Amino acid sequence: MLGDATGIGPEIAAKVLASGAMNDVARLVVIGDVRVLQMGMRDARATFPYHVYLNVDEAPWPSESIPVVDLANLDPAHLTRGEISDESGRVCGDTLKYMIELAMAGSLDGISFAPLNKAALHRGGWAFHDEHQMFAKLTNHGGFFGEMNVIPEFATFRVTSHVALREAVNMITPDRIENAIRLAHSTLRAMGCDPPRIGVAALNPHCGENGLFGDEEIRIIRPTIEKLAREGITATGPLSSDTIFLRAKRREFDGVVMMYHDQGQIATKLLGFNTGVTVTAGLKTVFTTPAHGTAFDIVGQGTADPGALEYALRLAARLAASRRAKQAQRS
Amino acid sequence: MLGDATGIGPEIAAKVLASGAMNDVARLVVIGDVRVLQMGMRDARATFPYHVYLNVDEAPWPSESIPVVDLANLDPAHLTRGEISDESGRVCGDTLKYMIELAMAGSLDGISFAPLNKAALHRGGWAFHDEHQMFAKLTNHGGFFGEMNVIPEFATFRVTSHVALREAVNMITPDRIENAIRLAHSTLRAMGCDPPRIGVAALNPHCGENGLFGDEEIRIIRPTIEKLAREGITATGPLSSDTIFLRAKRREFDGVVMMYHDQGQIATKLLGFNTGVTVTAGLKTVFTTPAHGTAFDIVGQGTADPGALEYALRLAARLAASRRAKQAQRS
Repeated sequence: MLGDATGIGPEIAAKVLASGAMNDVARLVVIGDVRVLQMGMRDARATFPYHVYLNVDEAPWPSESIPVVDLANLDPAHLTRGEISDESGRVCGDTLKYMIELAMAGSLDGISFAPLNKAALHRGGWAFHDEHQMFAKLTNHGGFFGEMNVIPEFATFRVTSHVALREAVNMITPDRIENAIRLAHSTLRAMGCDPPRIGVAALNPHCGENGLFGDEEIRIIRPTIEKLAREGITATGPLSSDTIFLRAKRREFDGVVMMYHDQGQIATKLLGFNTGVTVTAGLKTVFTTPAHGTAFDIVGQGTADPGALEYALRLAARLAASRRAKQAQRS
Repeated sequence: MLGDATGIGPEIAAKVLASGAMNDVARLVVIGDVRVLQMGMRDARATFPYHVYLNVDEAPWPSESIPVVDLANLDPAHLTRGEISDESGRVCGDTLKYMIELAMAGSLDGISFAPLNKAALHRGGWAFHDEHQMFAKLTNHGGFFGEMNVIPEFATFRVTSHVALREAVNMITPDRIENAIRLAHSTLRAMGCDPPRIGVAALNPHCGENGLFGDEEIRIIRPTIEKLAREGITATGPLSSDTIFLRAKRREFDGVVMMYHDQGQIATKLLGFNTGVTVTAGLKTVFTTPAHGTAFDIVGQGTADPGALEYALRLAARLAASRRAKQAQRS
């Protein structure tokens, strides 16, 4: 999915497709408006053979050209690049919905999307808190799921996310922590970590200093970790948040479970998260996207770096392959 | 002050003294037990001329040798190195108290100390929450003061510190924020930043997303910054905590005012805070110390890096010189 057409999405998608870098790990199909793809090729100063199909199931494999399902839903000639467009936001939502239906029907193994613009999505009528909520709704998901952030050194998982810090503190419950650790465990295992080494952050400074600065570590976090450890999940913690990321940076953990949004975001952004990947973990379909945004300031210049999108596609391919292997085992 | 004698303090102090690196910026005097200094010289495989005085005021300036005021209060032959010692903790507190009295009497311009051990201090009878509280008490301080953390890129100041996160959220008041920004402003100016560029962190993720995830930014933080801006204090914010440290790392700010302990500690530790300096800011006397600890694992090996202690001494010298200049202006 080419991302919001007002941004750098079409350009970086064209760069990845032109490079052939994904040929060894996935069968890529572009879903969107072919005119937006053509614009991306112009932005990227790159070209490659492609072929338009009406339906994703018609695409032959292997194929000498990139299959494109042309939804003919957005004419970029009518867009101002580098600006929020309600229309482009609406079309982003429509395209993702179309792709999710294909995935639910078994025609796609995973969905990677170039950067969206949240404000445009909102204004275009897709009024969700964030795209993860939207994906959960569109896949009819009932249970726990969550945003996961991946950098080369480690991945982060969230007990709480887009809520006020005051509310986040109240949401630190055994259930939520258990769900987040289980999600980390299963997702990291699907990524090839066996067994996954998970660090669990404390909520309070100095890990609560033995109850002196808060007792959530003693009452809630530690007992939950111990319970899961008895099941064989290798979770370590609670660890004070000013040391856990140093240890994760040294690759002592594959994943870090964080209690609140900024705890992990401060660390991953400082470690270069803009080259990282955001995953919606725990849903029926795999969703990945670059951590960076639409980068309006460099649109159309041909200078956008496709590295994070390629990383997102690789991760989607890996997670989807692991899911397929699991399904094959079951049947 | 040589730090806790069970750790690397005496070794790194001896290294700094032997190097003569501070000769251009300060007149150093060692206060403590001369036998601990001798042990530090042995640890450091370094030597330098020193001369023992009974009283700091007797030390001549300039001097070919390092003046030492021998308190004869700790025989290191009776200590096990690399282990917490109640006795050594007690003596650390006694020595600091002695130095504070000298500073209050005008015989010292600033106090730098090699790493202490908090648990030892506690067990030795100095039962304060942290050393900053101890210094405030011993200097009879009434007003606002705070821990400041300095790395080469920027310094951090705290609205709240060693309290539970739940309590920290409740302590986000206009008064506390104003005090922290004023302390940042005056301290950074004393360090030579003119005018100091101060970034103020948000409390909630995404800076509260316009009130969607908490309204402290709108109700409390922004109005306080605007009030101080009208006085000419160049404070910027509130800025979301996952971008403010990236900007500070790019040296867009001299100081960051953080709302809660881990917000800044995650960032500064990842940026190499162990080579940084901790300052007790806002008291009548200047206090600085390396950010790293007693490093029990490498005691006596001669490998400890004196860089952070040298940095702490330089910073104390700079802050003390600025204070003297101000006093001279007044009189």
